[in-house]
Amino acid sequence: MTLAVLGPRGTFSCELAEKIKEADEEILLCSTIHDVFVSVTENQIRGIVPVENSEAGGVGETLDGLMQTDCKITAEYYMPIRHFFASEYGFDEIEVVYTHPQSHEQACEFLRSLRDISIIHTSSNSQSAKEAKKALNSAAVTTESAAKLYNLPLLKKDIQNSQNNITRFLEISSGIILPDKPDKCSIVIIPKENRPGLLYGILEIFAKNGINLTRIESRPSKEGIGRYVFFIDFETDRGWQDMVKNLKKITGIKELGCYKNRSLTE
Amino acid sequence: MTLAVLGPRGTFSCELAEKIKEADEEILLCSTIHDVFVSVTENQIRGIVPVENSEAGGVGETLDGLMQTDCKITAEYYMPIRHFFASEYGFDEIEVVYTHPQSHEQACEFLRSLRDISIIHTSSNSQSAKEAKKALNSAAVTTESAAKLYNLPLLKKDIQNSQNNITRFLEISSGIILPDKPDKCSIVIIPKENRPGLLYGILEIFAKNGINLTRIESRPSKEGIGRYVFFIDFETDRGWQDMVKNLKKITGIKELGCYKNRSLTE
Repeated sequence: MTLAVLGPRGTFSCELAEKIKEADEEILLCSTIHDVFVSVTENQIRGIVPVENSEAGGVGETLDGLMQTDCKITAEYYMPIRHFFASEYGFDEIEVVYTHPQSHEQACEFLRSLRDISIIHTSSNSQSAKEAKKALNSAAVTTESAAKLYNLPLLKKDIQNSQNNITRFLEISSGIILPDKPDKCSIVIIPKENRPGLLYGILEIFAKNGINLTRIESRPSKEGIGRYVFFIDFETDRGWQDMVKNLKKITGIKELGCYKNRSLTE
Repeated sequence: MTLAVLGPRGTFSCELAEKIKEADEEILLCSTIHDVFVSVTENQIRGIVPVENSEAGGVGETLDGLMQTDCKITAEYYMPIRHFFASEYGFDEIEVVYTHPQSHEQACEFLRSLRDISIIHTSSNSQSAKEAKKALNSAAVTTESAAKLYNLPLLKKDIQNSQNNITRFLEISSGIILPDKPDKCSIVIIPKENRPGLLYGILEIFAKNGINLTRIESRPSKEGIGRYVFFIDFETDRGWQDMVKNLKKITGIKELGCYKNRSLTE
């Protein structure tokens, strides 16, 4: 089997894939999150994509992939995120810092404390380490594995703003796999019309069925400004199948899958 | 007076600032959205920040700035977004494309249609043009004004996925200015506890007062994964002041300002 994931080697997605892959499973590195969705669909394999971070919020490209493809969610994983400041230079010599924009946001307090530096955004945490290795007087905000990969000394560990920094990842597959007792389900509400009180009517159905929403996130419907779809995750303790039927009576919905929370062994 | 805005010259924020500035007003270019909020607070000036795009969704750094500072919203503007593909090379010769990550998302269909190119992310649409001017066999996804600034020929106009691509910008100020008849108000719901049904109870207050929500967006509360605050915009036709009082009885809220929608003259 193959596990598709956002590359290059040294990203958080890649670190997670290494932890959860089966012994005989190969990792396929994709260059964008969109490509992970395409690979999963075309090759009937499973993939891993980040969906939200406790500091930086939702990952738009993953929500769009769930909306636009037939991939289904088959598990979720919570991974603690640690950012490292790596460089071959001393703090006094550093003039340029390479960082992925999301890592910039997650480590902005530390980065703001550095004086007289320029920040250059890159396409991945691994790319940041690669660029810092090549350029003079530069440093990277990166992962432990990417710093190791590019042989870049760690100047400071855990530079993330919050020590509770966690990213939630989803496992996606091309087919529906309904586990025996799922922990959670995900749906997208796709309003057929833009009428006042629609969202209230939807949440009423959840409340009356005693079903707990764990997350709601709006995304542009891409039909013009002010038009949205709503991604909702909910717990599956009781009667959720009937509730989904009731929802379908008042709004368009797309079912994204019901799944288990899998814990990571250190 | 001074108008603070995300620089460098040639970004969409800058194009908007040029359109709306008073004759005697100077533009102050900031290097991040966070710096716009800091400048507005420290210098008691007004600023312009992007808050959502009809394709790419909310701008996290702006929502965080509204949450973390005392800046208030004093107006909103809707600006049509046009992306340009600019290069000194022909299509056959282009190997590298420089693009800001949000522009990448908004022009991904066009970019995917190009074969055998690498994409390098930059910190602004203006930076993309600057890099493409320097590097061999390269092109930029950029603005019309940045292409002009760096003297880069336009190969293709309007490469955005959607021809309805619009960005909503907010004018922020350091003091509260309540206009006579505001069009809209913005608040952040800051739940004191994480209890089931809270969001339903909040939307119920809007529905019972006949007040139309125009937008709801969740953001991490930064207190750990699964904890959120909710940014809500609503119309101000009737009784909204009483409604805000009722909301305060059941949840923490932060008022971000009531303001007018200002149209742009071409």
